[in-house]
Amino acid sequence: MNEIILLDDETLDDLQMEGLRLIQKKHGFRFGMDSVLLADFAQIKPSDTVADFGCGTGVLPLLLKGRGKGKRFIGVEIQEEIAEMARRTMLLNHQEQFVQIICADITGISKIIPAGSVDVVVCNPPYGMPGQVLRNKQEGLATARHQEEDTLQHFFMEAFQVLRGKGRIFLVYPAAQMFSLMTELHRQHLEPKRFRLVYPDLDHPANLVLLEAVKDAKPRLHPMPPLIVYGPDGNLTKELKSIYHISN
Amino acid sequence: MNEIILLDDETLDDLQMEGLRLIQKKHGFRFGMDSVLLADFAQIKPSDTVADFGCGTGVLPLLLKGRGKGKRFIGVEIQEEIAEMARRTMLLNHQEQFVQIICADITGISKIIPAGSVDVVVCNPPYGMPGQVLRNKQEGLATARHQEEDTLQHFFMEAFQVLRGKGRIFLVYPAAQMFSLMTELHRQHLEPKRFRLVYPDLDHPANLVLLEAVKDAKPRLHPMPPLIVYGPDGNLTKELKSIYHISN
Repeated sequence: MNEIILLDDETLDDLQMEGLRLIQKKHGFRFGMDSVLLADFAQIKPSDTVADFGCGTGVLPLLLKGRGKGKRFIGVEIQEEIAEMARRTMLLNHQEQFVQIICADITGISKIIPAGSVDVVVCNPPYGMPGQVLRNKQEGLATARHQEEDTLQHFFMEAFQVLRGKGRIFLVYPAAQMFSLMTELHRQHLEPKRFRLVYPDLDHPANLVLLEAVKDAKPRLHPMPPLIVYGPDGNLTKELKSIYHISN
Repeated sequence: MNEIILLDDETLDDLQMEGLRLIQKKHGFRFGMDSVLLADFAQIKPSDTVADFGCGTGVLPLLLKGRGKGKRFIGVEIQEEIAEMARRTMLLNHQEQFVQIICADITGISKIIPAGSVDVVVCNPPYGMPGQVLRNKQEGLATARHQEEDTLQHFFMEAFQVLRGKGRIFLVYPAAQMFSLMTELHRQHLEPKRFRLVYPDLDHPANLVLLEAVKDAKPRLHPMPPLIVYGPDGNLTKELKSIYHISN
């Protein structure tokens, strides 16, 4: 591990699982609960090849690997600096032989990753942070949403290409965009299947949706039980603790 | 009330609200929790004109009226026998001047109800009972679903016609059909807005969705808190009791 260089503006964070650690920017985007929930939600076989579209610092491959989900991972990240951090993280965790990090735009990635070669795509796609969305509420929102739908469209077109027949894509996304997310998936022949709404607690609106879609499947939606983050006592619910591997 | 005739195969049920009573078939479809949840979910002004598409025995107009929601109601029911029961129910409750029952197919109803004359449409549309859906699982399901989507399409086309600009439609539907419901509404320029998933309890999948759509509105979905029917103790939750006007 002494060969891994940590830059001044970076932190080394313990993922609290199998000793895995993650290099992140002190002040940039840091992985959050959405990645952990997605890693838990995704049904992936130990033998599966998994592509992570927009892998950032590489947290999802690590979280999945720690859960015994997936064998080989391809993380795609457009920002060279972040991709390079992800590569160092894989070295640090001795995962470099299982996790390949490609610095590339998702648009066109099916020219790099062979068509039909992937069992599962996971994706925590870029979406406006609540603050940003509010700031742009007046005129910018429509543009931002248009850009977001554009991004989703490209992500899903490429996912369709790299996935094998009946391959699966697992996503986490704002619950308020659930309908446009499903519409875009359906349009790209990735049929929405299981979905689960995430509620901060019993009294607040769902803020996230976890969604599974299957390539070229028949339309049939499967709602799941609610996923509640905090209980009435203000503590994480039993299920959340279990997802975070916190022993009660 | 002694002028109201109750037939042999009918029952007279107390709606537990403002003394309202409902005539129903002993063995036919009987109103259930979905109507009560929809009446509670729907945001309707006391001055609004409300059309109930597929009103059955007239339970929704009664439940809404009992909550001070809506002034004038037009219930549309295709089966003459049921429409006639609904008419007797309105007489029984002295609501005949507020609730008009029309026996007609929804398809073409905008030739009877003037275009743009209605503030709100409520709809507890016909959907396969769970048992039926299972029975038809092999080949019949696709046909059944196609017929259902066909019905929805006609309902929403007519709703669009009779609603005023920015008029609202409130629906209750199986959660598993949520995506096709939203797709069909969007296609008919009734934009999905607020939605709330109904869960039997915290451990089971959502079985119903309550949904509000607005005529000619911009796309913007508003998720709501979960609606949980039974608590961990096996009793109705506080919110369900409040919806049913059961004092704790």
